[in-house]
Amino acid sequence: MDLQQLLDDICAGAASHYGQGRVADYIPALASVAPAQFGIAIHTLEGDLYSSGQAQKRFSIQSISKAFSLTMAIHRHGDELWQRVGKEPSGTAFNSLVQLEFEKGIPRNPFINAGALVVADSLCSRLSAPVHAMLETVRLMAGTASITIDRKVADSEYEHRYRNAAMANLMKSFGNFENEVDRVLRAYFSYCALSMNCVELARAFSFLAADGRCPQSGRQWLTKRQTQQLNALLLTSGLYDAAGDFAYRVGMPGKSGVGGGIMAVVPGRFTVCVWAPELNEYGNSVVGLWALEELSKALDLSLF
Amino acid sequence: MDLQQLLDDICAGAASHYGQGRVADYIPALASVAPAQFGIAIHTLEGDLYSSGQAQKRFSIQSISKAFSLTMAIHRHGDELWQRVGKEPSGTAFNSLVQLEFEKGIPRNPFINAGALVVADSLCSRLSAPVHAMLETVRLMAGTASITIDRKVADSEYEHRYRNAAMANLMKSFGNFENEVDRVLRAYFSYCALSMNCVELARAFSFLAADGRCPQSGRQWLTKRQTQQLNALLLTSGLYDAAGDFAYRVGMPGKSGVGGGIMAVVPGRFTVCVWAPELNEYGNSVVGLWALEELSKALDLSLF
Amino acid sequence: MDLQQLLDDICAGAASHYGQGRVADYIPALASVAPAQFGIAIHTLEGDLYSSGQAQKRFSIQSISKAFSLTMAIHRHGDELWQRVGKEPSGTAFNSLVQLEFEKGIPRNPFINAGALVVADSLCSRLSAPVHAMLETVRLMAGTASITIDRKVADSEYEHRYRNAAMANLMKSFGNFENEVDRVLRAYFSYCALSMNCVELARAFSFLAADGRCPQSGRQWLTKRQTQQLNALLLTSGLYDAAGDFAYRVGMPGKSGVGGGIMAVVPGRFTVCVWAPELNEYGNSVVGLWALEELSKALDLSLF
Amino acid sequence: MDLQQLLDDICAGAASHYGQGRVADYIPALASVAPAQFGIAIHTLEGDLYSSGQAQKRFSIQSISKAFSLTMAIHRHGDELWQRVGKEPSGTAFNSLVQLEFEKGIPRNPFINAGALVVADSLCSRLSAPVHAMLETVRLMAGTASITIDRKVADSEYEHRYRNAAMANLMKSFGNFENEVDRVLRAYFSYCALSMNCVELARAFSFLAADGRCPQSGRQWLTKRQTQQLNALLLTSGLYDAAGDFAYRVGMPGKSGVGGGIMAVVPGRFTVCVWAPELNEYGNSVVGLWALEELSKALDLSLF
Repeated sequence: MDLQQLLDDICAGAASHYGQGRVADYIPALASVAPAQFGIAIHTLEGDLYSSGQAQKRFSIQSISKAFSLTMAIHRHGDELWQRVGKEPSGTAFNSLVQLEFEKGIPRNPFINAGALVVADSLCSRLSAPVHAMLETVRLMAGTASITIDRKVADSEYEHRYRNAAMANLMKSFGNFENEVDRVLRAYFSYCALSMNCVELARAFSFLAADGRCPQSGRQWLTKRQTQQLNALLLTSGLYDAAGDFAYRVGMPGKSGVGGGIMAVVPGRFTVCVWAPELNEYGNSVVGLWALEELSKALDLSLF
Repeated sequence: MDLQQLLDDICAGAASHYGQGRVADYIPALASVAPAQFGIAIHTLEGDLYSSGQAQKRFSIQSISKAFSLTMAIHRHGDELWQRVGKEPSGTAFNSLVQLEFEKGIPRNPFINAGALVVADSLCSRLSAPVHAMLETVRLMAGTASITIDRKVADSEYEHRYRNAAMANLMKSFGNFENEVDRVLRAYFSYCALSMNCVELARAFSFLAADGRCPQSGRQWLTKRQTQQLNALLLTSGLYDAAGDFAYRVGMPGKSGVGGGIMAVVPGRFTVCVWAPELNEYGNSVVGLWALEELSKALDLSLF
Repeated sequence: MDLQQLLDDICAGAASHYGQGRVADYIPALASVAPAQFGIAIHTLEGDLYSSGQAQKRFSIQSISKAFSLTMAIHRHGDELWQRVGKEPSGTAFNSLVQLEFEKGIPRNPFINAGALVVADSLCSRLSAPVHAMLETVRLMAGTASITIDRKVADSEYEHRYRNAAMANLMKSFGNFENEVDRVLRAYFSYCALSMNCVELARAFSFLAADGRCPQSGRQWLTKRQTQQLNALLLTSGLYDAAGDFAYRVGMPGKSGVGGGIMAVVPGRFTVCVWAPELNEYGNSVVGLWALEELSKALDLSLF
Repeated sequence: MDLQQLLDDICAGAASHYGQGRVADYIPALASVAPAQFGIAIHTLEGDLYSSGQAQKRFSIQSISKAFSLTMAIHRHGDELWQRVGKEPSGTAFNSLVQLEFEKGIPRNPFINAGALVVADSLCSRLSAPVHAMLETVRLMAGTASITIDRKVADSEYEHRYRNAAMANLMKSFGNFENEVDRVLRAYFSYCALSMNCVELARAFSFLAADGRCPQSGRQWLTKRQTQQLNALLLTSGLYDAAGDFAYRVGMPGKSGVGGGIMAVVPGRFTVCVWAPELNEYGNSVVGLWALEELSKALDLSLF
């Protein structure tokens, strides 16, 4: 099958799915994004790039950054990290604080907010400039020096920080938080405010399809086994409370963000990133999910 | 690598892991099983069989039966089934009744007890003899007419039915239970009391590695896509509250039972079943998990 | 103040509060009760009776029966009963099964459904005819031989028994339920289906205002201290999830039922019963609450 | 009965109950208090004072301060306050954050920590110097100008603030917190760090036995009805998760603190304060509970 043609077909079909979700509106900087947009990009292990639609338009990557920060933390802490955060899928969103309390401050996995806060805390403990280090790493991974953090988004998130602050303080009360809450929140929101496009994200995550080695920089970010493990975690926990449905429909490790982006991995073949700002009730891109399911069915990409 | 040699090596190493868990003891029929036992069997798509240890000794398959009953229910109900049961991993065991109440009687997935009860209920609605039908199906899948249900185990489970009865009644109060609670409990406990060995289980589940077609009977139990979907559900929810850890360590779809068995699938290649009665705190076979991790590492079986 | 005049004034004012609630509709037998009705009766320790409105019209006493069954259980079991049920107010209704699970099958107090089921279970353990015994006791307390159980209501409750059956089974799984679930449910629903009027209820509970001695029968149902303790429990837990608000507004021990009745106690002075079928969101009679607050304010009845 | 003799008898009996609990140890300043101490004081509406044991020794009043701050908040906000905090007893301590999340940031009552934080927040909104104002009020109520705040205790509490900070941030995320979290925490911990003795506390709370009028200062802190309402809240929610048991055993409105103090009210007669530092599992003074139960039985003080 012609991959470019497939992406163009999917892009052409996307418009008929507009209007089924809502753009994230908990901060003004996200609420102002135009809803009817779609981009998709595939970056193969051979270095080929295929894209369609607004694949060059940057958006707020939000929770997709949790896959970057977890990579950095595994790189630095190795297996020690798993003393502080679990590997199990969480139950409903409703349970977030409940579970954190029941499990005495150990978040269930590194992709729920509490878990990503612990990951950010672990980076703050090792790095004097955790935001700068992240930016440099992501630029290196994506091979693009112009990637930046949208300060307006980061500041706006900080102004609405209270629920995350509650979780960080609760973990601190259980002894599972090393740094000042405010410093970690600042770093965490900066990570979420990274502004990237589909092409850059597909390229930046290509190490996940390549046994941990970044084709752009040649850097071995993770060992082969760590890469398999990270992909396993993405599959079981990467899409908020819809990870099971994503595995069922798409069958690939992936990570979504409320900016409307979703990146996914076909180990040994390629990485893909879609973007469409309208979200469903679980905070995942409606059209993005549809596009990845189409792609998976067309190319029989399910790992199962 | 010589597969038979590998299984023999794993079998030889198993003994050094005895004593780290406890045999299930909530009913006498299970509590009396000798702890220091180990069996393993692989059944390839080419029809080759490799086994080591007590691979021919039958044990109580318990929750592994949930993969059989779900297959039968998907076969009969198709996508309709998902109106009554979710596809998402559950949180902690502690939450079972909490979540069931919070989600108004819809179990999170078909492998937690509440979900398997709904699946059994759906079979009771379509089949006049749901236990007989299951037995016939499993015999056909395994190619072994001598497989039976251990009535002593089934009766003993029924005598300790109260927690499952609580869940069934709660679902009935929410309108998500069609038959008399007692009839469904009887069927459910009969399924759990199927007595099979590693070879029979590896053979019976080979359709999961073969796009839904049973090599023994030639029957197409599920479509290719349904098979991928079932494998995806097994990976995200098949090992109780340790599904994330299993994906991380082993990287294969699988289903465990408190009888000490675990079956796992390598799509396109083979199915494997291990058995060792000692369980860890999550109800999974301690030595079985170790054996599957060894196998996965030795043959690089992780799907990720 | 002229008590009769006060009751007549309250009765006259009741009509202006009609229409703010809804008649219980989870079973047909209750749903068919006409909403715009009001009755009130006071029975003093001197034996004087004051009443107004439909104080002679019988209604389904429902959960008010929990105060009768608890009296019988304390009479028979004494302090032993508190090994099986707590004395603390519960949190939200939502939590019922959660709390029961978290506290390992011990209901928080004898007035939530789970607690009343344990109380009924304890009576079934001691009495060969627990329904007959209750009927005889209540007739004696009220001094009215014609009181009966409405079989249609009891049967209808039994047909909708599943949530209560879930709780009973859950308690049985924790070892806190002695008899067959079905037998206890039958008794429990029979108690709830007692049909009485305001005058009969005010008279039947007069022992609670009189240090445990029934003025009608001369029987000492409880010791003085047990009576104080039961009144304390009624105050902290008698009105479902609105006990705090009732104490705040009315300031008297009381017990409500979804039939629209509320009985309350002024220790050393009198008992009062109101009836008005429309319920608020907590399952308490809207007009009944208003009437008791008016009465409490007019006569300065708050115990505090 | 000779009241002084009774208090002396109780004081003499207290020693035999030492050793059954543990002094609060979550902050060093409290952990260093000697456990085997007991004091009791009664202040009657006639102005008579009876005391025994270490009734003049000051201790950290901790949560008893919540009755002071609630009085001040009702005085200033009236019924408006109840838009922000409920009047219902809470379930288990375990549920604190759960309930706060489930009920969207509205604490169940003003005596759990979350509720007291909202009360403190409401005072911070109205008062430019909320700590100074509290100190002046309490001095006036007790008729003792020398009452102070123990800065060491307040600072130590602040250092261990994280669980309270989590709750305050969670409420802020729900829009139920007006001021900066840190400012309110400082005020809240200062209130808890008030250092007073049994005599001072009995005197300071005498307005609760006297329809809201302080006999010392002549000030009407609350209306008669507000006083009844506050007493009702103390009875249903004043003793953490043991309010039901306290009502059952003692039968009086009361408020305890982890410093080992308990104050209680007999409306129309007197206020009493006991102090003994050893706490039971619910955080209430073991010997204090025993003493109040003895007192209640000896004088038949139960309101019920």
